[in-house]
Formats: sequence, structure tokens, C-alpha cells
Amino acid sequence: MEIAELGEFGLIRHLTEDIEIKNAETRKGVGDDCAVLEYPAGRQVLVTTDLLMEGIHFDLQYVPLKHLGYKSAMVNLSDIYAMNGHPRQMTVSLALSKRFTVEDMEQFYEGLRLACDAHGCDIVGGDTTSSLTGMAISITCIGDAEAGKVVFRNGARANDLICVSGDLGAAYMGLQLLEREKTVYNEQVREAQRRGEKPDTLPPFEPDFSGHEYLLERQLKPEARKDIIEALAAADILPTSMMDISDGLSSELMHICSQSHTGCRIYEERLPLDYQTAVMAEELNMNVTTCALNGGEDYELLFTVPLTLHDRVSAIPGVKVIGHMTKPELGLQLVCRDGVEMELKAQGWNPLKR
Amino acid sequence: MEIAELGEFGLIRHLTEDIEIKNAETRKGVGDDCAVLEYPAGRQVLVTTDLLMEGIHFDLQYVPLKHLGYKSAMVNLSDIYAMNGHPRQMTVSLALSKRFTVEDMEQFYEGLRLACDAHGCDIVGGDTTSSLTGMAISITCIGDAEAGKVVFRNGARANDLICVSGDLGAAYMGLQLLEREKTVYNEQVREAQRRGEKPDTLPPFEPDFSGHEYLLERQLKPEARKDIIEALAAADILPTSMMDISDGLSSELMHICSQSHTGCRIYEERLPLDYQTAVMAEELNMNVTTCALNGGEDYELLFTVPLTLHDRVSAIPGVKVIGHMTKPELGLQLVCRDGVEMELKAQGWNPLKR
Repeated sequence: MEIAELGEFGLIRHLTEDIEIKNAETRKGVGDDCAVLEYPAGRQVLVTTDLLMEGIHFDLQYVPLKHLGYKSAMVNLSDIYAMNGHPRQMTVSLALSKRFTVEDMEQFYEGLRLACDAHGCDIVGGDTTSSLTGMAISITCIGDAEAGKVVFRNGARANDLICVSGDLGAAYMGLQLLEREKTVYNEQVREAQRRGEKPDTLPPFEPDFSGHEYLLERQLKPEARKDIIEALAAADILPTSMMDISDGLSSELMHICSQSHTGCRIYEERLPLDYQTAVMAEELNMNVTTCALNGGEDYELLFTVPLTLHDRVSAIPGVKVIGHMTKPELGLQLVCRDGVEMELKAQGWNPLKR
Repeated sequence: MEIAELGEFGLIRHLTEDIEIKNAETRKGVGDDCAVLEYPAGRQVLVTTDLLMEGIHFDLQYVPLKHLGYKSAMVNLSDIYAMNGHPRQMTVSLALSKRFTVEDMEQFYEGLRLACDAHGCDIVGGDTTSSLTGMAISITCIGDAEAGKVVFRNGARANDLICVSGDLGAAYMGLQLLEREKTVYNEQVREAQRRGEKPDTLPPFEPDFSGHEYLLERQLKPEARKDIIEALAAADILPTSMMDISDGLSSELMHICSQSHTGCRIYEERLPLDYQTAVMAEELNMNVTTCALNGGEDYELLFTVPLTLHDRVSAIPGVKVIGHMTKPELGLQLVCRDGVEMELKAQGWNPLKR
């Protein structure tokens, strides 16, 4: 169905009318000039926002709209956890060009709602409009945390342990794989055209990714680490600093060190890697450490805890100590497997940089 | 200066480093994964968001970036007032194509900050990224109101008076004027090209708008009606329903009637019009009532109050009673100057409608 048949208000109604409010703090969701929230005394309110542009942040040739909805929500949920908070509400704004249908938006919302349901987050509003070219997605997520329990980037101290959850670099490897398969497919299309065949007689883009399922899942369906926030609380650990790894470990470490006025020292041999990541890096002739440091889109948590909590933090499944903070004059150092020290450089995602 | 010289983080720092926090509720602004807010008990939190796309919502051929920043903030501030709230925080996300410079963004932020300063609103975060084609602007505004004082769209009752602030249709006339002048200028450019001249030898687009200043100001520099919200509070009037007029009076009235389960009856002769709006409509051969009903972008307030408050609401400068609510079965009626009744139709802005 064409979106123009429903119009803006009809489409919003269609996509949001059966949304059930899950949080007591949500007093009014979709349908007025504003959403209305009411948080009890002693709670701090967290706000984060992300703007995702077609062709920059996602490629609809290989990202299904349901996955895109899921991931768009997840990257925002992840920012709330990165402050040691819990997501509660979300607004979702979309700009759509004419090529999108109502069914496309149903797919997108299905993914979005799957992510929100899994994290107890209410969709409370947004804006739906048209676009001359591609799709734009803007999501704002609101969460809360007990006053005094919010974790910032600036609280790390020298000697604090540096911890990461999960493993690194797999999402980036997934992206490389998708890009490679896309290039192969587009070449097949061009070949067919050269032979005078119509490209739509070719089978659709359905590459074989067997053996690489984990990499694709990490790229297409990242998971915000609610479980780690809960495990830290259960272990009575309040990190001294935290952020989520969206642009790459090196880049995020630089933010924490710069805001905390520290240096850091991390160990190559301690970087958590999945087997598939290592295999794929080998296959693509890439350095797997570089991928883990600069890959981005892992949406794992990077945090620091006092040295005294070493045993307690090491006991949390899926958390690995990769190094420690240092005095600022020691800089940001990577200790390689052979013992050589290298200065860390942020080569991660920076959409506005040359 | 090219934006690529600064990169994402450098640009954000450059644009936001001297922002001063004005509200005690803002505990942490720009610079972490989330902004952190803390509202006292008894306050409800309002959240609104708008996504503005180049070529759909604004035309950079005639909208200066400073005005665009100002207006982008204003349309969100207006939504907070429309709930009887006060704006406190704002996040600002921008997607920029390569043609924008650091100086362009300084202009945009100058307008944005002018609007925020005038309304006591803190810029607390956002996202800055790149775009393949045009510019996209996504703003989320957060405000607060005393619990129980939030005004929704669904509280109007039959016999309530329908009130609007300011005057209607001028912003739409301003848009028509800008579009007309743009067409004239682009024709001059094409003529010059036909004569073999380079278009850049022509003087830049600086049309003469004398006598139409008010219309242009309404289009390029709308003002959210904080003063009306304050005047209503001072007069101890709590509207039964309210929204701001962004898509056009007819469209907004339909929202209020539909959500309040009422009909309405408004009087053509009571629609507030500025002299310049009437003159311009005549010049363009348009029906001025149609412009007032469907023009949009006025950012005035539309609200209803109980009949008993007639004298008190009429005493507020800049507020006009234009009709009253009715039982739902009477429908939405416009009583024309000649006494003829017509059904109101929403022909206002609907970007996704054919």
C-alpha cells in the first residue's frame, strides 16, 4: 500500500494504535503535542538521541527493514545503559521517500517494537514526514537511574581496571562481509546487463553466509547490554566511568581518558575476540587487533572499576579486564603480544572527518 | 572552513563549548552518552520531537541558516507551550552534506541559541553526522509542567469557547511571496544562461520585500507563544484543550474535536487576520479565509475554555474567541460572513499525503 493513501496521521495511527504502555512513568504516549512523563523523586532522567541517514549509516540493499528498526532502537538503548540507566521511553521520527510502502514501515516498526519490548521501553511519540531522497531515522531515548548512580565518562582514576563486555570487531567484520557480497552481486548484475539480459531475471540478492552467522548477527542485530548493567548492580559494582562502544574501542578509550584526565594501558592479548572474527580477518587479510580496536558498532560496554574490585568484576560472565588506567602523562598505550608498546590512535567511525 | 577539518567531535565541541546551563534541572549537558536531568517531585516531563528535511520543510535558497536554526528551535518550543508547559532542555541532531561549512553551522547555531536563550531552554546534546544529499534537522525538546496542569487535546466539552492567539495565514502568505520571488530570480538566471552569460555574474538573490515585512517575519522567524501561556496562568485560566497551529487551523480543530468527541462552530468574521495577509491574498488572487484556515506554520495557540470564562479570556491581549464547541453530531462548521454554513475540511500541511 502506498503511504500517500494513509497520509501522515493515518500512517502514525496505523503503526502505533496497538502500542501498550509498559511503564508507570509514561502518563501519555503517542497522540498529542508532547508525550507526558512523571518520574518519582530521586530519579534522574537520561536523554540520548541518534540520527541515522540512508547511505551513511545503513544500506538498504542488504539491511532488511525489520533489522534496521531493531538496530535503530538498540543503538539508543545502549546509550542509556552506558550511563548505568534503564530505558523507559522512546520517540521515533522517520523521513521517507516515495519508494517506501506501508508494508515497509510495518517491517521497520516490527523490529523497533521487538527491541523496545525486550528492554521495557515505551514508544511515546515521534514525527513522520517525507524526504526527497533517502530515509532518515531520528530516535530519542529517555531512561532513568537512581540519583547518584549515574556513571559518566569522567570518573576514571589512575590504576582503575579497564573492562569490556562481550567481544570486539565482529560487527565490523560482518559489515565487510556484507559489502563484499554486495560487490559480487552488483558485478553479476552488470555482467547480465552487458549480455543484454534484464537484471530482474537474476535471482535476488541472497548470498550464502554460512559459517559467518555470528558476524552478520553482530552487524545486523546488535544487543544492548542490559544484562551487564544488571550483573554489575547485582555484584554491587558502581563503575567509575562507562560508555558504550559504538565508534570503536580506541576512540571510546580516548574519550574516557580525555574526560577523566588519565592515560591508559591495554593489552593486545587480552582483547576479547570471537573465533569467526579472527577467521574472517585472516580471510580478508586484515589485522584482527586493528578490527577490534577500531571496528565500531559492537555496542559492548567499556567501563572502569577500582583495582580493589578485580576479583568481583572478573567473576561476571562476559566481562574481561583488558588493562588499567594510568597517569595522564603516560599517554594511551597498547601493549602488543610481543611486548612492544604502541600509542593508541582513534581510527574509528567519524562521519564528518575526511 | 570545511567541516571535515574538525570532524564530528571537533565540530560539536566548537559549537557547544561555551553553552551555559540555565536550568537547575539540567545536571549534565553535552559531552556524555546521555544528558542527565532531575526534575523535582510533582513536575510532569513533556517530550516533543520534530524532523525537518531540506527540500520538504525548508528551502535554503531563501531561508538563511540563522533563521533556520531559530525556527527549528521555535517549532519545538511551541509544542511544549501547547501542553501548557515550559521548555527546559533541547537536543539537536544535524545531518550535513559536504557543501556546508563550519561557518554555516555557526550561523545555524546562532539562531538556535537565540531562540533557546529567549525561552530559557538548555541545549543538552544531539548528534552530528553526514548526509549524502540535503540537510536534516532533528530536534527533541523537553519541558515541564505542574502535575495536573498539563493541557491535552481531548478535554474540550460542548459549549466551550474556541480561542486563538495572534493572527492566522501570514506565515503562509510569506511562503507564497518567497516562492514567487524565487521563481522570478531563477527565471532571470535561466535568461542569463540563454544569453550565454554566467549566472554568477548576476547579483545574488536579494528581492525587495518592502511592505511585506510582517509576512516574511511570520514565515522566517515565528515566535512560540510563551506570553500567552503566562497570561493564561496570570488570569487563572486552565484551558480544557490546547494545541499549537502548525498544520493549519482546520486541521488542528479536527484533531481537538476528534479527540474530545465534539463538533465545533467557528465564525469567518472572527478569524484574526493581519492587514498585510489580506492585501497579499488579494494580490495573489487567493481566498484569505482559506489561507487563515489551512495556511499552517503560524505557531499560534488554539485552545478552548469553559463558557463561563468568556470575559476573562477576552481580556487577554492578543487572544480572540472565534467560536465554540458543539455536540459531535453537529460536525465541524464554519459560519461564513453571509451566514452560510460550510463544513470544515483539513487541507493543511500533510507531507505524506498525495
